[in-house]
Amino acid sequence: MEMMAVIKAAREPGVKIVKKPIPDVLGPNEVLVKVLATSICGTDVHIYKWDKWSQGRIKPPLTVGHEFSGEVIKIGSHVKKVNIGDIVSAETHIVCHECEFCRRGEFHICKNTKIIGVDTDGCFAEYAKMPAENLIINNSKINPKYLSIQEPLGNAVHTMLHFKITGKTVAVVGCGPIGMMGVNIAKVVGASKIIAIEVNDYRIRLAKELGANVVINPLKEDVIARVLEETDGMGVDVVAEFSGNKQAIEAAFKYVKAGGKMSMLGISPDDIDIDLSNDVVFKGITIYGVVGRILFETWHQVVGLVESGKLDLDKIVTHTFPLSEIDKGMEVMMSGNSGKVVLIP
Amino acid sequence: MEMMAVIKAAREPGVKIVKKPIPDVLGPNEVLVKVLATSICGTDVHIYKWDKWSQGRIKPPLTVGHEFSGEVIKIGSHVKKVNIGDIVSAETHIVCHECEFCRRGEFHICKNTKIIGVDTDGCFAEYAKMPAENLIINNSKINPKYLSIQEPLGNAVHTMLHFKITGKTVAVVGCGPIGMMGVNIAKVVGASKIIAIEVNDYRIRLAKELGANVVINPLKEDVIARVLEETDGMGVDVVAEFSGNKQAIEAAFKYVKAGGKMSMLGISPDDIDIDLSNDVVFKGITIYGVVGRILFETWHQVVGLVESGKLDLDKIVTHTFPLSEIDKGMEVMMSGNSGKVVLIP
Amino acid sequence: MEMMAVIKAAREPGVKIVKKPIPDVLGPNEVLVKVLATSICGTDVHIYKWDKWSQGRIKPPLTVGHEFSGEVIKIGSHVKKVNIGDIVSAETHIVCHECEFCRRGEFHICKNTKIIGVDTDGCFAEYAKMPAENLIINNSKINPKYLSIQEPLGNAVHTMLHFKITGKTVAVVGCGPIGMMGVNIAKVVGASKIIAIEVNDYRIRLAKELGANVVINPLKEDVIARVLEETDGMGVDVVAEFSGNKQAIEAAFKYVKAGGKMSMLGISPDDIDIDLSNDVVFKGITIYGVVGRILFETWHQVVGLVESGKLDLDKIVTHTFPLSEIDKGMEVMMSGNSGKVVLIP
Amino acid sequence: MEMMAVIKAAREPGVKIVKKPIPDVLGPNEVLVKVLATSICGTDVHIYKWDKWSQGRIKPPLTVGHEFSGEVIKIGSHVKKVNIGDIVSAETHIVCHECEFCRRGEFHICKNTKIIGVDTDGCFAEYAKMPAENLIINNSKINPKYLSIQEPLGNAVHTMLHFKITGKTVAVVGCGPIGMMGVNIAKVVGASKIIAIEVNDYRIRLAKELGANVVINPLKEDVIARVLEETDGMGVDVVAEFSGNKQAIEAAFKYVKAGGKMSMLGISPDDIDIDLSNDVVFKGITIYGVVGRILFETWHQVVGLVESGKLDLDKIVTHTFPLSEIDKGMEVMMSGNSGKVVLIP
Repeated sequence: MEMMAVIKAAREPGVKIVKKPIPDVLGPNEVLVKVLATSICGTDVHIYKWDKWSQGRIKPPLTVGHEFSGEVIKIGSHVKKVNIGDIVSAETHIVCHECEFCRRGEFHICKNTKIIGVDTDGCFAEYAKMPAENLIINNSKINPKYLSIQEPLGNAVHTMLHFKITGKTVAVVGCGPIGMMGVNIAKVVGASKIIAIEVNDYRIRLAKELGANVVINPLKEDVIARVLEETDGMGVDVVAEFSGNKQAIEAAFKYVKAGGKMSMLGISPDDIDIDLSNDVVFKGITIYGVVGRILFETWHQVVGLVESGKLDLDKIVTHTFPLSEIDKGMEVMMSGNSGKVVLIP
Repeated sequence: MEMMAVIKAAREPGVKIVKKPIPDVLGPNEVLVKVLATSICGTDVHIYKWDKWSQGRIKPPLTVGHEFSGEVIKIGSHVKKVNIGDIVSAETHIVCHECEFCRRGEFHICKNTKIIGVDTDGCFAEYAKMPAENLIINNSKINPKYLSIQEPLGNAVHTMLHFKITGKTVAVVGCGPIGMMGVNIAKVVGASKIIAIEVNDYRIRLAKELGANVVINPLKEDVIARVLEETDGMGVDVVAEFSGNKQAIEAAFKYVKAGGKMSMLGISPDDIDIDLSNDVVFKGITIYGVVGRILFETWHQVVGLVESGKLDLDKIVTHTFPLSEIDKGMEVMMSGNSGKVVLIP
Repeated sequence: MEMMAVIKAAREPGVKIVKKPIPDVLGPNEVLVKVLATSICGTDVHIYKWDKWSQGRIKPPLTVGHEFSGEVIKIGSHVKKVNIGDIVSAETHIVCHECEFCRRGEFHICKNTKIIGVDTDGCFAEYAKMPAENLIINNSKINPKYLSIQEPLGNAVHTMLHFKITGKTVAVVGCGPIGMMGVNIAKVVGASKIIAIEVNDYRIRLAKELGANVVINPLKEDVIARVLEETDGMGVDVVAEFSGNKQAIEAAFKYVKAGGKMSMLGISPDDIDIDLSNDVVFKGITIYGVVGRILFETWHQVVGLVESGKLDLDKIVTHTFPLSEIDKGMEVMMSGNSGKVVLIP
Repeated sequence: MEMMAVIKAAREPGVKIVKKPIPDVLGPNEVLVKVLATSICGTDVHIYKWDKWSQGRIKPPLTVGHEFSGEVIKIGSHVKKVNIGDIVSAETHIVCHECEFCRRGEFHICKNTKIIGVDTDGCFAEYAKMPAENLIINNSKINPKYLSIQEPLGNAVHTMLHFKITGKTVAVVGCGPIGMMGVNIAKVVGASKIIAIEVNDYRIRLAKELGANVVINPLKEDVIARVLEETDGMGVDVVAEFSGNKQAIEAAFKYVKAGGKMSMLGISPDDIDIDLSNDVVFKGITIYGVVGRILFETWHQVVGLVESGKLDLDKIVTHTFPLSEIDKGMEVMMSGNSGKVVLIP
């Protein structure tokens, strides 16, 4: 039996759509999933573009993709956690259970993490083989399109909810797909004022629709001055950093309030210059580096939020294409004029 | 200049509506407020009924009441925090700033707390004198009726947000005015399932409108069995206890999940019998006693939530009367068929 | 090849010393350990006495015992974590890795925990087969006698260090072997005043040697009055409860300071009656149920503390017998006149 | 009545020893203290040298100094907290009680902090006037010399105990007077391995005596490589940064373990360049800026630790001079070859 799959076939840009056998031998702890919906991550774009990071990490041929929802159609001999027919998604970090971090339950910083769709075959395909322990079971009444974006939603939840934001002022720095989820989460949990920072007009509009009270465009305004103005000169209680942009990050250290908190998810290629004395020490702030999702605590929060029906997932997913039109999806992602892009196999 | 005021005139049930002079001598740190709206607390009902607690604590004559919103019309010589014209509410605990707890910033457990409307003249009057340091400044665009209930809302916020509930299952035990606020807060911050426990039909209906996914009536159902059924046999992640009812509290220890959390606000006249070994130690749970509001952290959350416009304050305030009809308000409160009851001077 | 082992041979009190084959077939994730030292836990005493709990849980024949240090002499085919020659001890909770709690890293409250020496053959033997994942590697320079008591030391560490106690007043309730470890830990980490509560003269003396500033004997003194006297009428910042005694636990709720913390490890057969309103709610305290050890966070703390050389392990281990004289060891344990009792195979 | 005092008399380096009147008019909340011992802070050295910071902040004439112990000899009319004869020290931050931070109990980041000996007359004198609310009462049995250094000890305690270090590996970066206190605190609370980083030979020796297991001299060794070597390649659990040295701080970001914690107290004149992606985000670490002492939580810990007798205060205080020989004290401080330098009026 064959299936369609999107693979990185060679050490070069782009992907290939191929026919390949449906995985039919399952390990005792593996599960075969029929993919219902899958979404494009920034990581997939890196692999597509074949950038420096990809060249060092990816070993073609590889089935790409790691965000999905799907139906369990076959289970390995030891699998008890999920049943045939369950609608599932997957945590994409496969952890070792052996290192110091795993042994103390901090799976998200496992030293030996493998990533689905990066180190093992992924889900841009009609079927995908997954380790049972990575699966979470979804409410089958929810649109698979929305269920497919829960993994990146987990990044946003981890970033937004590490510090308490209910009733607080929050700056969401960078409104790409995950940042805009961050805006929406801040709205849902009752932040008192949500200040988004974004340069792209499409995303500025979306951030407003998703709950930003103010959106500041650093290309047009002095971000630090505006944030202070919006906060009676005090700065924001919490910064959630999704941009990975050097200037944006450095500015955030200036407008975070004394005693404030910073959750850092965005990945910057550049070193960040910090006036540690004035902006960290004397302010008495706390900074937290966000790695993936807290297993599986963050997933419980994600599933709970999705079930609560309060997130505007219909606005966060801006485009849907057939999986065969992945090139179109990649184009939209690379244009910056999108939220999450979903592909249907 | 005279004003109308509701006072406990004598050591007996009921209150008296009297004319008394508008306070005109302000201490350097005091403020005179024209009361716009005031609401009835359970404590006011105790004083009204002249129950045992009141007999031991209240020294008539006393102007009753402590929940309000009002306009600042005069300020003492040292007051800089608020200005004439500001719309304010008050933290009702006057703290000593001297005890160990105040000195370490834990004002809510101050050893020498005095309470407005209990130990000093309160706000069931046209005008009230308040310590400036207890005031918080409101957004003047919000209906004073809603602003008046922020103090008890603070109790609910403190109870609900001490532990993380976003994406978690929560049991709200007791849906009197503060408990129903708790239900509404849990909805706003995205609890995944809100299970309310309540016996009164009026409040059962209201709890549903305010966001409870399930309301269990212990008079009709086995609470423990039902909560377990609603949570796949696991119990709830978080219990928020507002009832002060012995049976309800003891049941909660049975249906809280292992590793779960309990926030206790309700005051029970009875001792509580706990199987500490099985229900606390072996379950590894955490229990937190809620005293008032965290000064002024909780108030920032309250003001933020109220400004976010996400709470259903219009449903929580079920009755409004002129202050002169306070007896009617008390009657409604005592009937149990109400949310918050607001009085307009 | 045969070895000596202490087994519960039949559904009756006592144990039997037998010869049985050294386990020679190892699963891929199992390890064979030559036991160097093993110590007697309260649980072992229950099994020895064949009390009600044992009758419901233990299925003879079973090799008893779970606290030990030993040398790895053979490893299963998949074992990479430990090497032959390593000196190891074991976490005694075998967890499932599948339940909600394990999946979120809270292994200590695993729903499906099995316990070594209770549900599987234990270490009161010359050799013992252990799951590799449960092992921790010890510093081989430390006396095996002291290494064998690290598992209960972990209970004490978990109880004492859950809340911050450096520079705080602490009550240690009950100075059996684990409670006296608690006293010693409080001393090591710089509690400002350590108040121990104990009735047994032998243990009172030992508690003093291990660092208690004050030991109160409830048979001779009014505990609540004395604790208040020793704390300027304020009560203690932190209670660490090891006694499982109804009266002792109920008293602790009276003398814990407002805003204080209670760590509960002791197991009481009786329900505890609490004036929840006055002693929990109005005081604003936090109560934590202690289950086993936080995997493996607590173990890192234990190993770190043992390596730091600051604990008085030589005083905590009061008796050492050959394993063959286990009856003597049990007798000493049951007399109450002991700290930890170690057995050498 | 006159007293000796050390004052900054003019806008120039050095200090002057003068006779001036003993303060005899006390405000209602003030206290007159006979100074028993006072110690030299780095801030005092800045003022002595008349560096750029001093030139912008100090308004001569000013009595310098803020670390002391003394006897209360006169109290203002409203003072109840302390009595004549009490041996006291002072928190040196005079806070406003009005700003957002004070109102929520985070006095240490008060927006309007004034500092004793910087903004108001200090304690390098025979007598000093102090705000009663800033005083803490000491155990009068302890040597005043040691009591005088409790304020900087509070900085060290705040830095070392913000994160849990018992049983953890800790790097103490910079072993000036406060850093060496940090080393000693880590020893007292049972850190498993204390790695100190220091360049000065005198301080290297002292760090070892105070409990460092390893001292690395960055002038002679590759700090990052050595720390990794000492920690099985994992890095340290906790970094406590006291140096304010750019290279030292940047190195610390490299050798902190994944999931690790950094407490930052040292003040660097330079911007710090951080590879935020690899060293903060992907590592999932937490960074905390340390401002002064948590009022008065840190002081309770300090007093508790000092009373416990476990700190090596006799080694931390390396020099004692009469107050009149302050120039000698300053010289020793500036040489780097000292711990704390105490002056006796």
